Amino acid sequence: MRVVRSVAAMQRLALNRRGKGRIGLVPTMGYLHEGHLQLVRAARRQSDFVVVSIFVNPIQFGPKEDFRRYPRDFRRDRRLLESAGADVIFYPAVKDMYPEGYATFVEVERLSDGLCGASRPGHFRGVATVVAKLFNIVMPDVAVFGAKDAQQVFVIRRMAHDLGFHTRIVIVPTVREKDGLAMSSRNVYLSQEQRAEAPVLHRSLVLAKRLVGQGERSAAKVRAAMRGLIQRESGGRIDYVEITDTDELKPVRTIEGETLVALAVFFGKTRLIDNIVVRTGSCEL
Amino acid sequence: MRVVRSVAAMQRLALNRRGKGRIGLVPTMGYLHEGHLQLVRAARRQSDFVVVSIFVNPIQFGPKEDFRRYPRDFRRDRRLLESAGADVIFYPAVKDMYPEGYATFVEVERLSDGLCGASRPGHFRGVATVVAKLFNIVMPDVAVFGAKDAQQVFVIRRMAHDLGFHTRIVIVPTVREKDGLAMSSRNVYLSQEQRAEAPVLHRSLVLAKRLVGQGERSAAKVRAAMRGLIQRESGGRIDYVEITDTDELKPVRTIEGETLVALAVFFGKTRLIDNIVVRTGSCEL
Repeated sequence: MRVVRSVAAMQRLALNRRGKGRIGLVPTMGYLHEGHLQLVRAARRQSDFVVVSIFVNPIQFGPKEDFRRYPRDFRRDRRLLESAGADVIFYPAVKDMYPEGYATFVEVERLSDGLCGASRPGHFRGVATVVAKLFNIVMPDVAVFGAKDAQQVFVIRRMAHDLGFHTRIVIVPTVREKDGLAMSSRNVYLSQEQRAEAPVLHRSLVLAKRLVGQGERSAAKVRAAMRGLIQRESGGRIDYVEITDTDELKPVRTIEGETLVALAVFFGKTRLIDNIVVRTGSCEL
Repeated sequence: MRVVRSVAAMQRLALNRRGKGRIGLVPTMGYLHEGHLQLVRAARRQSDFVVVSIFVNPIQFGPKEDFRRYPRDFRRDRRLLESAGADVIFYPAVKDMYPEGYATFVEVERLSDGLCGASRPGHFRGVATVVAKLFNIVMPDVAVFGAKDAQQVFVIRRMAHDLGFHTRIVIVPTVREKDGLAMSSRNVYLSQEQRAEAPVLHRSLVLAKRLVGQGERSAAKVRAAMRGLIQRESGGRIDYVEITDTDELKPVRTIEGETLVALAVFFGKTRLIDNIVVRTGSCEL
């Protein structure tokens, strides 16, 4: 496994490899957990040359967000990626990705506005921009993302399709702790008490799925039940609990077809997200 | 020479060709003139497989601009490109490039705001977006643009560099009619009288270059001399006459180093642009 730090060297490597077997890319911000490693294994199965990028991307953080204190541990990440079968870690410096005079941004309209986009203005612009740039540098035939970041998945899928990237976008299901909490690098911020309460997020999603399975079609009623559960069973402050279509991510009143149930809840300063996709009709999930 | 109309077919072709010799791309809006053909010949010299795209890109036209009446003549273009040595014409439909639900745009900040961007809001967003998409579809190692569209050149160069495209951007000098008028598909709009007056644009640029060569360093004085000449010798309505740096395209007060002298002038409804780059110091142009 090689570690490549420069943008130019990574691109030279990709130019040499492209067309000679599939290149797989797993974009991460590091501080890896089992969820990331599942992405790497999926990339391993679906490509011949696996690049994992580790880059805490400043332009997807708001001015009051946790860019500086975002957890980092490169040596541990390197060890984990070696075991998971990565061929290259692409580990660029911020000033190599965004040199002085940097001016170009990729925007995905509409899909970036609601859900996390509403409380994190500019976040998905930063995500779409860095992913487009990583695609140009690494030239992946396959790129793998985790379903936990649902809006990110929809934004990137739309961006890749709209801009004509040849890269196939693969989504891997959320990996959870035994008590249901979605794995996240940010879980490390939680106090013991917050950690004990946080699984209520997943329970609220399971509740939503059960209600829809029982025939409930009112988004308002499902959301109210979820909010009630979260408020009864935790001290979390709800940022949003939303139910949207899976095309434009617009809130729906009636749950039918493929529908995203997504939430963001603060535990102290730590903002956790989770989601589930439910399907009504013949192909119930 | 092949004509490829579908985005998917063009990308399949590029995926098969990439890495086996250099792919060259010349993005055009068709209605080709000698200026375009020079771009194709430059691409021919610098690459092994030359793709010329013909696409009148709706998203770079404002609502009151000439998208609908923009001149088109595909049969003539095809004949010219055959002679100039293109391998492929990529000739996509608008609904294949921008299908329903299209949402992604590429923005180049600062460089897109002044000059033509001031009177054509959104124009360079449309340009940057379509060029990024063409780069992803055609995967060119070299892309060739004409110097006549100066701001476009700077915006695309910045975009390609910022987003990490491996594509090398090649700029070919403006091709002019014998009387100095820059070749443009829009020259066909001019009445006989307007056509007779239009070469004053080039004369004003030559005047600017001469003044700078004689030691004039005041941008205000050079601009005033240019405006005076245009107003004396034509009925053109000046949109802008501007002198900027060649990095961020910001207006300068003092002309030093590499400087862009650019203008846009309306003759009736027809907006013509032209420019020249002047250099002070040891390497006078």
